Amino acid sequence: MKVAVFGFGNQSYYRDVINMESLLGGEPPFGGARMAMEFAQAGYEVVLSDPHISTIDASLIEKVKAAGVELTTDDAVAAKDAEVAILFTPFRSGISMKIAERIIPHLGKGAVICTTCTMPVLVFEVAVKKTLFMEDREDIGFSTMHPAAVPGTPKHKHYFIATNELLEDHIVEPEQIEKLKKLAQDTGKTPYLIPAELVSAMGDMGVVATSAAFASALEYYAVSRKYLKTTKEMTEFQLAQAFQVMASIIAKYGLEGLVKFINSEALKVSLSSMLYDEKIQKVAFSSMEALENIRAISEDLPEKTKIFTKYEPTFLSAPSPMLISYIEELAGEDVAKGIIREALRKLYEGNKS
Amino acid sequence: MKVAVFGFGNQSYYRDVINMESLLGGEPPFGGARMAMEFAQAGYEVVLSDPHISTIDASLIEKVKAAGVELTTDDAVAAKDAEVAILFTPFRSGISMKIAERIIPHLGKGAVICTTCTMPVLVFEVAVKKTLFMEDREDIGFSTMHPAAVPGTPKHKHYFIATNELLEDHIVEPEQIEKLKKLAQDTGKTPYLIPAELVSAMGDMGVVATSAAFASALEYYAVSRKYLKTTKEMTEFQLAQAFQVMASIIAKYGLEGLVKFINSEALKVSLSSMLYDEKIQKVAFSSMEALENIRAISEDLPEKTKIFTKYEPTFLSAPSPMLISYIEELAGEDVAKGIIREALRKLYEGNKS
Repeated sequence: MKVAVFGFGNQSYYRDVINMESLLGGEPPFGGARMAMEFAQAGYEVVLSDPHISTIDASLIEKVKAAGVELTTDDAVAAKDAEVAILFTPFRSGISMKIAERIIPHLGKGAVICTTCTMPVLVFEVAVKKTLFMEDREDIGFSTMHPAAVPGTPKHKHYFIATNELLEDHIVEPEQIEKLKKLAQDTGKTPYLIPAELVSAMGDMGVVATSAAFASALEYYAVSRKYLKTTKEMTEFQLAQAFQVMASIIAKYGLEGLVKFINSEALKVSLSSMLYDEKIQKVAFSSMEALENIRAISEDLPEKTKIFTKYEPTFLSAPSPMLISYIEELAGEDVAKGIIREALRKLYEGNKS
Repeated sequence: MKVAVFGFGNQSYYRDVINMESLLGGEPPFGGARMAMEFAQAGYEVVLSDPHISTIDASLIEKVKAAGVELTTDDAVAAKDAEVAILFTPFRSGISMKIAERIIPHLGKGAVICTTCTMPVLVFEVAVKKTLFMEDREDIGFSTMHPAAVPGTPKHKHYFIATNELLEDHIVEPEQIEKLKKLAQDTGKTPYLIPAELVSAMGDMGVVATSAAFASALEYYAVSRKYLKTTKEMTEFQLAQAFQVMASIIAKYGLEGLVKFINSEALKVSLSSMLYDEKIQKVAFSSMEALENIRAISEDLPEKTKIFTKYEPTFLSAPSPMLISYIEELAGEDVAKGIIREALRKLYEGNKS
């Protein structure tokens, strides 16, 4: 089976900007090139395409070639008859969509295009769906080979593969998922099958926030049972309200808005009545510690907040799933889907209005 | 100035169910009755109305009376000429709305009705707005005297007062806010002026989740600057995505859905690549600890999850503020407002569809 990887990975970022070897260990190349090497070492036919190969250290190029990876600057060559195409392309640039347009005509029958940590699969899928139709290539599926770690570091022992679960319109076939599972397993990684909408929230860097939210939800549920004896429904309302408000403030007003509108002093005095059990409430107690040293982590935000004065009012707490059901009623399912994806794209592209 | 308080507070819940004295200290009565006592002790004319006064311990009734509070079972009597009406009424029952209908004709000119921890002020405001219009009482404003703690416990040293900030349609006048500030201060409490949409998220029990989300957002921003050197925009996208997904899962599928769809094992392996600095990332490290002992806090959820098999697909990651701007385009501002409030009410009432 042929695997095409697009994007070598920005080695100067890994080396000079974040110093990956000392941060997380491992050795270069990191990113797409490392994934390609591991697939080749597992016996797959692998082509790695990157327009900037000529700028990459010769020693790294040699290493990749030695692992059995074919290198090219021509995306169409890489794509030719490939069954799996993996995009390790730059974040937020539209480049992924352009590559998709170039490679779709050349991919093997029933191929699956996978995004990684650089692009949510559903934002991508909606952007290139039209191309599939125009090229009469609706045999092609979409999923992820999300490393949920930096390939080349010792922590990278898994891939997150996006499934259809929770989606109304399926994006991938069971055989395509099976191919990806086998590809992960053949490189010694654990495949995790994850609903498509959750892959980015669980695999990207924002996993720090997802984990804090998840753990605090369960902690609060435990406390509501053990100490407060409140209903599960009330706990759910409280949690949905809290996370909806936080998501909306950040989506609409950015981190300046978060710091401006959430009075951390008020948050602290309120939280202090909800700390009952250090054993159960690890996250709640550490949140209090963080709030007590807020200046240490808020960095330049207080300064930015001072100049943040113009903002449109909006509604912060209205929950997305309920809004979506109304949009469907108002405008029909197809329009609703378009709007939802457009809203997601706006968020992805950092358009706050 | 006359202050009317509605709802004595469920003393048997405080005493028998959660054992408030040993949990947080202080002494009964807790809740609405305690607030009324403190206002009266500060020199205000205070009437406390509750239909179940006859079922309350005589010793508590005596204590409240001794503080100078007048007691009644007739809401209209309590409301007569009151400038501030505070609802310490049961959670999720529609009772608050019914009381509002009864008292609105009797309140003093320019009175302000305040919700507390039992009802988000904006859910309430939208439900009773029509009554104001019908009774020609649009002089009445809405805000909160949210204790953000249990009145009667030593932690209760503050009130959260809802402001118009972030709202398109104002719900309260500056003079009404001033009255509430003075009322808080006169009882020795610190008034915090909080945008109306944030009062519940910051003051209710879900503050544990709001705090974890807030602290984890700032931590991640600090790490993205110090270690990852990623852009502020990328951090914001990641955060909005994480909290939006968590809010949507819980709003739509409840805690069973959360536990079912978020694979905690996968979350853990992904988070492990994002732990760089224990000093900065207090919440992230404690989230990992929580994930490692997930069974200790997930209680009966694994069991509930087993029987949770029927669920509608939906879109989890589409951000509310962007959806709202499309609803406005589709249906106009007035319809949009109605839908938003209806969506919020659905969430509040625990209707997941």
